[in-house]
Amino acid sequence: MSGLLDRIKSPGDLKGLSSEQLKRLCSEIRTRIIRTVSTNGGHLASNLGVVELTVALHRVFSSPDDRIVWDVGHQSYTHKMLTGRADRISTIRTKGGLSGFPNRRESPYDPFTCGHSSTSISAALGLAKARDLAGKVGYVVAVIGDGALTGGLAYEGLNNAGRYRKNFIVVLNDNKMSISRNVGSMARYLAKLRTEPSYLRIKGNVEKILDRLPGIGRPMHHVLTRSKTVLKQILYNSTIFEDMGFYYYGPFDGHNVDKLIEVFTNVKSIDHPVLLHVLTQKGRGYSFAEQNPGAFHGVPRFNIRTGKSASSGPGFSAAFGRALCDFAEEDGRICGVTAAMQSGTGLTEFAARFPKRFFDTGIAEEHAVTFCGGLAAGGMLPVFAVYSSFLQRGYDQLIHDVAIQRVKAVLAVDRAGVVGEDGQTHQGIFDAAYFNTIPGATVYSPSYYDELRSCLRLALYDGPGLAAVRYPRGGQLFRPYDFQPSGRPYDRYGEPDAKITVVTYGRLFSFACLALSRLKERNVKISIVKLNRIRPVDRSAVRAAAEAEHVFFFEEGIARGGVGEHFAYLLSQSGFRGKYRLRAVTGFVAHATMAETLASLGLDDSGMVNMILTECASNEEKKIGLPDL
Amino acid sequence: MSGLLDRIKSPGDLKGLSSEQLKRLCSEIRTRIIRTVSTNGGHLASNLGVVELTVALHRVFSSPDDRIVWDVGHQSYTHKMLTGRADRISTIRTKGGLSGFPNRRESPYDPFTCGHSSTSISAALGLAKARDLAGKVGYVVAVIGDGALTGGLAYEGLNNAGRYRKNFIVVLNDNKMSISRNVGSMARYLAKLRTEPSYLRIKGNVEKILDRLPGIGRPMHHVLTRSKTVLKQILYNSTIFEDMGFYYYGPFDGHNVDKLIEVFTNVKSIDHPVLLHVLTQKGRGYSFAEQNPGAFHGVPRFNIRTGKSASSGPGFSAAFGRALCDFAEEDGRICGVTAAMQSGTGLTEFAARFPKRFFDTGIAEEHAVTFCGGLAAGGMLPVFAVYSSFLQRGYDQLIHDVAIQRVKAVLAVDRAGVVGEDGQTHQGIFDAAYFNTIPGATVYSPSYYDELRSCLRLALYDGPGLAAVRYPRGGQLFRPYDFQPSGRPYDRYGEPDAKITVVTYGRLFSFACLALSRLKERNVKISIVKLNRIRPVDRSAVRAAAEAEHVFFFEEGIARGGVGEHFAYLLSQSGFRGKYRLRAVTGFVAHATMAETLASLGLDDSGMVNMILTECASNEEKKIGLPDL
Repeated sequence: MSGLLDRIKSPGDLKGLSSEQLKRLCSEIRTRIIRTVSTNGGHLASNLGVVELTVALHRVFSSPDDRIVWDVGHQSYTHKMLTGRADRISTIRTKGGLSGFPNRRESPYDPFTCGHSSTSISAALGLAKARDLAGKVGYVVAVIGDGALTGGLAYEGLNNAGRYRKNFIVVLNDNKMSISRNVGSMARYLAKLRTEPSYLRIKGNVEKILDRLPGIGRPMHHVLTRSKTVLKQILYNSTIFEDMGFYYYGPFDGHNVDKLIEVFTNVKSIDHPVLLHVLTQKGRGYSFAEQNPGAFHGVPRFNIRTGKSASSGPGFSAAFGRALCDFAEEDGRICGVTAAMQSGTGLTEFAARFPKRFFDTGIAEEHAVTFCGGLAAGGMLPVFAVYSSFLQRGYDQLIHDVAIQRVKAVLAVDRAGVVGEDGQTHQGIFDAAYFNTIPGATVYSPSYYDELRSCLRLALYDGPGLAAVRYPRGGQLFRPYDFQPSGRPYDRYGEPDAKITVVTYGRLFSFACLALSRLKERNVKISIVKLNRIRPVDRSAVRAAAEAEHVFFFEEGIARGGVGEHFAYLLSQSGFRGKYRLRAVTGFVAHATMAETLASLGLDDSGMVNMILTECASNEEKKIGLPDL
Repeated sequence: MSGLLDRIKSPGDLKGLSSEQLKRLCSEIRTRIIRTVSTNGGHLASNLGVVELTVALHRVFSSPDDRIVWDVGHQSYTHKMLTGRADRISTIRTKGGLSGFPNRRESPYDPFTCGHSSTSISAALGLAKARDLAGKVGYVVAVIGDGALTGGLAYEGLNNAGRYRKNFIVVLNDNKMSISRNVGSMARYLAKLRTEPSYLRIKGNVEKILDRLPGIGRPMHHVLTRSKTVLKQILYNSTIFEDMGFYYYGPFDGHNVDKLIEVFTNVKSIDHPVLLHVLTQKGRGYSFAEQNPGAFHGVPRFNIRTGKSASSGPGFSAAFGRALCDFAEEDGRICGVTAAMQSGTGLTEFAARFPKRFFDTGIAEEHAVTFCGGLAAGGMLPVFAVYSSFLQRGYDQLIHDVAIQRVKAVLAVDRAGVVGEDGQTHQGIFDAAYFNTIPGATVYSPSYYDELRSCLRLALYDGPGLAAVRYPRGGQLFRPYDFQPSGRPYDRYGEPDAKITVVTYGRLFSFACLALSRLKERNVKISIVKLNRIRPVDRSAVRAAAEAEHVFFFEEGIARGGVGEHFAYLLSQSGFRGKYRLRAVTGFVAHATMAETLASLGLDDSGMVNMILTECASNEEKKIGLPDL
């Protein structure tokens, strides 16, 4: 490799490059991004869009003293390559490798870990105020997409930053999309700004004209003089961002690295919050991604030449989407709601078939939940399809705007459980626990597509109040030929008279079945209690488990406050006097494949077998009749 | 009473009243509000501010077919009186009486239950869309304060409503305050709009002038003609609300009932989202409240003539504020953060003494938490003082922007536990459970002021990561003369060799001590394990409890996912084979006094005594050596 990229060991190495070299560097970076994502999977279109922007930022600013705070962070590959991580970029999103998102623990160049949307302005403001209080120097720059600007947190950040009296730079990376097409008034407003590239010039012209106006007749003169001040004020505050206290400059071509360097250099001297409106193209430089940036937002590995992905099959999201369409065909009250995740949550067909009943709120989970509360209070039957991790944003609204209203609203919680390569910020490990806390909530956790359908039916029609159906990323796993879902709150499988019972739910049931087979080979019998409804837990499921001497609970979710702890409590009330062992998630979980993650958590069949054998081979071995091990 | 008010049985009764009568009605309503709040306590200033606004709304609109959605809802007293509840207004905020907030279950005139801020636009949009889908008619009006407009949820609502193509009315009730002085860019922006009462007129003038402009010289004419379009566009979009897709009208005098009726009548015919900017005065008509609206936001009962409240003493908030000031004096890294609750959370002295380290974010809990994450990542030691119930809004940010960052940020969680008269939306019953789910969090729950101080010290300096100190509304309760807090993660009190152990934390310890005395009189011995740190629970506290044959856990918080369930799990791992009983909160909790609430939950000393006697008098009576009962 005679590349420029490999010679960039830190951002300082950019300072000496010529304009020509910077362009060549951008080209090399693009190639590296495409190659990396084609191999590892990851976020392609967003990263290709910000190559010049990132190069210009690191050319002008001096991180890590200057802090660049990325929003969401799935566009940080160029940033990682320019900050000493180019040699490890091939490890991105793999176990032990680089994270696909900025990570404080990975590099001093990542001042704030992220993954969720709309946090950058608030975090950057905190960093800036901390810098002031500590008497330090250094610029703070937040880079936020137009999609992330639909999130209320971004607005709260603007509202708080707008009265700051120091240099504070927000770069609005406007690619007209969040993950798919951006929605809402703000998106339309940005579109308007975009079509007025001469905005600043016109503003200047008008001002000059107003200054020359005294040339006209008397009465007119009077009115105009009075109006001039008002007009000027209005003109000076004619973008939302100026109204919010920022200086607004733009829009600028986000692929013109020279221009961006000039702009960034100029705004460094402004002692005021500044918003730079930069236009970028998602997927830039890779034709398949340019043509279909939505499809190339987050992708599994793909063939560079053909653009074809190693498809992971339809999966739970698709199964949900199909089932919802079928129910919606029969029931005109059903509405489908998404927070900028139409495709990811399987709602594309629904949106096409029932456009009036489909609502994309933008990246605005809080609004989406409260809006569902309103729809439900108005007699509709809303279904909000959302990733488990992002629904954390709507926790208060679930309590306050759904549960307290005592209306029926359904949550379709996708990516529940470990999610693999996206890592710690995206793991769906909290939903079972936070739903636990919400009075009156009913939560289903199917293991298979047909169960998802029956659970969705129950969520929609069985009883009042908030109901959720949660299911994992990807597709259904192993199902024993002799297992038939009952549709009841729990199912039993295995040896009913075994002294060991495994209790679990969701996808882990597949692993429990595999564990059962493997243990059987070693003459260890187990029975399995598969919870289909995890809130409330059916009392007879507890009684069934309590028949055993050993109960093992495996949970693909956080231990504290989770279903397993609740089950321990229920067992304690049932008179159970045996041994209870819970294995669940106890901390944040880094990126790796889903299989690797489940294995490292001890939640796959091997983990279950080992735990059961280890526990039962211990002091109580004889009592529960285990064979020698 | 020869009053008009008592003749208003439903909003329809307003239709026949003359302008003069409406004004008299407003006066009567004001008197009734002052009398009611002086007796029951409640929200005074906000209610006095919207009397005319509410009367005008109900005069023009026909609820319940038309839906009026209040934001926060602490300004709904007039609304309640005009919608058939005047005769019960004296019961407001009392047990079994009217709620202090709109409540769907209380009246068909309350289309959406509320209590938290910034929900109205989202909920109203849901109601409007549901109406459309159901083919029904009826206006939907959201009434939101300028304070609530600092919340990101309100912005998300505007962003989603701005592209709606039907009548949709948002009334911005601008009193220049949230609870105290409003903050942020939006507040400044509204102040600007306020000072331009001729805004609309000038806009019209300028337009007319532009239309007449051809009279001026050639070159100028050319430029102006080109600019005219731009100017018009800019003029037509010169408020944020217009940029967000709303028609903006105002500002209007919110105490001129005739004018308001005219405005509301006019905008009914507009098939477009409309924002009406209405100026009101908090506390209007009661001089003490006009002069000090912040102090009269939410008040205990008071003397009408003197304005003096039945003070409830300094309480935990003040104890926290004092302690924080003392620590901040010694440690320049400590910052105090509030979300529009400076006074309520006891930060007034801190704000005065350390203005550079004090941050009021407005009603923006999400931003406040992420901002704290940024401050902490920048080396500061932020302390966010916030009500338990409102911190629900920041759940995702606690996980994503503090815990994952692995930075030290401290939450001072006020109003943890039951809050009394504010009722279901304000109960601080979820925080122990939701903190439970957050990896690495440390949570303290002191029972007394001196413990609060030592817990705050531990939260600030003992170990890394997210730490919270939670304490109840009001003041400390009974403390036995022979109890001395140890500062350790738990304390023991009572008879160490008793066969009954009570485990509890926070304010319930006082009741446990009272229960201990009362049980002693009946020759029933108990020991108490008082948890000072509720996350993580100290293992030796579990061992201490496990020595008993009966363990009772009393928790002033939600049962599922709470500390008591976790304790059950820990006991199950300790080899405990005795009886475990948990009493905690199992659903939403309505308004009543704190004492009444605790009693009805069985969480005061009587509740504890009864539960212990009942349980222990049952089948295991002999085994644990109880006397005859």
